[in-house]
Amino acid sequence: MVGGGFAGLQVTRDLRKVDVSVTLLDRRNFHLFQPLLYQVATGELSPANIATPLRGILRKQKNARVVLEEVTSISLDSNEVYTTDSVIAFDYLVVATGAIHHYFGREEWRPLAPGLKTIENATEIRRQILGAFEAAERSNDPDEIHDLLTFVIVGGGPTGCELAGALAEISRHTLQNDFRSIQPADARIVLVESGDAPLDVYPEPLPQRAAHDLEKLGVEIQTQCRVVEIEPTHVMIRNKTTEEVSRLNTRTVLWAAGVKASPLGAILCEAAGIESDRGGRVPVSPDLSIPGHDTVFVCGDLAQVKMEDGGEVPGLAPAAMQMGAQAAKCIRADLRSKPRPEFRYRDKGSLAVIGRCTAVGQIGSYKAKGFVAWFIWLFIHLMYITLFRNRLLVLMQWGWTFVTHDRSARLITDGANTDISTMEQATGWNADPAMPSTRHLESTSQTGAGGSD
Amino acid sequence: MVGGGFAGLQVTRDLRKVDVSVTLLDRRNFHLFQPLLYQVATGELSPANIATPLRGILRKQKNARVVLEEVTSISLDSNEVYTTDSVIAFDYLVVATGAIHHYFGREEWRPLAPGLKTIENATEIRRQILGAFEAAERSNDPDEIHDLLTFVIVGGGPTGCELAGALAEISRHTLQNDFRSIQPADARIVLVESGDAPLDVYPEPLPQRAAHDLEKLGVEIQTQCRVVEIEPTHVMIRNKTTEEVSRLNTRTVLWAAGVKASPLGAILCEAAGIESDRGGRVPVSPDLSIPGHDTVFVCGDLAQVKMEDGGEVPGLAPAAMQMGAQAAKCIRADLRSKPRPEFRYRDKGSLAVIGRCTAVGQIGSYKAKGFVAWFIWLFIHLMYITLFRNRLLVLMQWGWTFVTHDRSARLITDGANTDISTMEQATGWNADPAMPSTRHLESTSQTGAGGSD
Repeated sequence: MVGGGFAGLQVTRDLRKVDVSVTLLDRRNFHLFQPLLYQVATGELSPANIATPLRGILRKQKNARVVLEEVTSISLDSNEVYTTDSVIAFDYLVVATGAIHHYFGREEWRPLAPGLKTIENATEIRRQILGAFEAAERSNDPDEIHDLLTFVIVGGGPTGCELAGALAEISRHTLQNDFRSIQPADARIVLVESGDAPLDVYPEPLPQRAAHDLEKLGVEIQTQCRVVEIEPTHVMIRNKTTEEVSRLNTRTVLWAAGVKASPLGAILCEAAGIESDRGGRVPVSPDLSIPGHDTVFVCGDLAQVKMEDGGEVPGLAPAAMQMGAQAAKCIRADLRSKPRPEFRYRDKGSLAVIGRCTAVGQIGSYKAKGFVAWFIWLFIHLMYITLFRNRLLVLMQWGWTFVTHDRSARLITDGANTDISTMEQATGWNADPAMPSTRHLESTSQTGAGGSD
Repeated sequence: MVGGGFAGLQVTRDLRKVDVSVTLLDRRNFHLFQPLLYQVATGELSPANIATPLRGILRKQKNARVVLEEVTSISLDSNEVYTTDSVIAFDYLVVATGAIHHYFGREEWRPLAPGLKTIENATEIRRQILGAFEAAERSNDPDEIHDLLTFVIVGGGPTGCELAGALAEISRHTLQNDFRSIQPADARIVLVESGDAPLDVYPEPLPQRAAHDLEKLGVEIQTQCRVVEIEPTHVMIRNKTTEEVSRLNTRTVLWAAGVKASPLGAILCEAAGIESDRGGRVPVSPDLSIPGHDTVFVCGDLAQVKMEDGGEVPGLAPAAMQMGAQAAKCIRADLRSKPRPEFRYRDKGSLAVIGRCTAVGQIGSYKAKGFVAWFIWLFIHLMYITLFRNRLLVLMQWGWTFVTHDRSARLITDGANTDISTMEQATGWNADPAMPSTRHLESTSQTGAGGSD
């Protein structure tokens, strides 16, 4: 297995009673519950609440071994995985290294507009948000204060909406009495969405409801707009309808606009002699193996899986877990010389939280919104958090935040990744040393560019 | 107030009903409960459990303002504090910026042997410890594994003993079944102490009991020994009795050997025309003001306070809080034109935890040890944790760890301070750019060198 995310962990666990030896390779020593990452970025939860040590999870699974190495290459001829430190031979391989942020060819935006994929991303975003309020409190210049208190979120998908809602909650409630010379509630939160409404993957009336709820929280939504330039002091936004380009002064830009597959996708495709899709994902056979290499599976966000209705399986945690289970089923079937099942995605629906007591989403044909959607979201996320202990801790902190509006994890720490870059350079990973050096750069994350988050 | 530690926070809070305007200056946005920092370093607690946002603590105190700036200089003639961003005039000044690690003139050891003073130190130590186990699991070379699993702790004071005990607990219990090719319990934990026994500030039989308890946990104690050289691959230890120098191969050295006052001590002494003591602390008058400048107080670890019996007030949290209260009393007395009280230190005793169910310490004339000491320690620390919410969270996590031996916060994250250095350079702080670049260096903390932890 490569990747200790939802898919990789699922395969590993599903093989626990099978007479195989499983090696789980990951760069990091923990499994990250990504759906709650935005709550770390906004100071509600601590990193340890949503990150669980892989060794701890697999402690009792004697046929599983965790190896913290970074995969650099894969040979499908000799059935070997090359890491920075060693070569590992395999009979079966499952690659599930997920997705990273995609800046549509504008890599220079990465340091200026961090995305939200890793723990370091989250603590860095937390640092930027809280740092902007602090800098505004120190400033005497009304223009500068205005710029500092303007937050731009690029992309109105679930992550963008969750970030926007949480930011509104922070500025309107959490920080309400914390400052003496600024009013945090004056903060302007702008959500830039290229479609007609945020969350437009959902059917109407959900996007409209989401837009309404966000606006009620004080989020300004600019639809039909694209960010065409990001600078340390401002962004340029082009309206797709009027073709007008306007300037918006801001010091904090958060990226929630696009993902692409982790670089291992391209490596795999090259090795298999197939072509990746536009997002860098690997097109797989109906059993999730790579065409022509039936002992190599690709799961999770890294796989491009077509459904019967012509659509694609979405990049969600439940989908990743189902794919992981599928790969395990295929391996078990092979061992018993039985035919492999085909992968069939069961859409369990999805939900996006907007704010306190409100969310939207779809579960089967049921369009959930408002309090009900929020409550279902709460329940499902709590159920899937990996450890019972973390489940309790998260529940407690949610309860506390709900009642008091307080977020105790709003620490400005130096969760930087300058040393990830160092590590990446040391390990030959493709860190870009020519990255321009600007304002937030010293600590902006490149983690997303790594192998197996 | 300069410094949001125990002393600075106490002054600020004690002035809440006084008709003054209080400005609390700190580099960081949180108050850190330093006595529990070692539990973050050993993966038991999360940073947010022991760090509380200053603005949150002082939200309701309308006469207090928090400013996140770093003090660079102080003028006692014009009554002004200079920060990186501004100049702040004062009527009264309380300086309580605490202590930093002291490498006895061997600054080159700082990156090789991190101390434990800040959140970044703690996550860095956690990273090194867990990273050593991971590297050992990956290695095939028995010598390298042995070196990786050798941990050297320099200094047998409370911090050293607490770290050694927690490390023993981690290797013997927490990680017991986590690895497949190494036995974490094989880890060798060496505590290097220059005196006759660890914790020799306590009267007998406490040091002997501490040594006994530590040895029972599997900690090797080298008494009468001094570390004379630290290299990335080994340390050289000189036995003070035999004058023999021996080499100990290790990849992880933790520093708990000495502290000195924060650099503001020297700045203050120069401004006041007095001489600091050997530890860089400021000798103060009986009311804790600086001789000749009775509106400037020095509190906490930064102050050298003589007691009636000739001893000095120790660098403990309760002492810092008492000093803070004293400064507030003096200011209140001045405002009412009453005479200032003299500072009298009430020794409430102190305790050092050694491991599960065992601690040693002294409370008044009572020499506490074993389970009773441990239980008192637990109770007192829980009582003093700043927020009720954190108190609950910490209690829960302690309970969990106690029952299961598990520590869920054992994440290897990039809690680096390379960007602190960047920040320090940007703000003119004395980061040493010539610091040698070695193994752990890319992420070793210099935070301790900062102004107001």
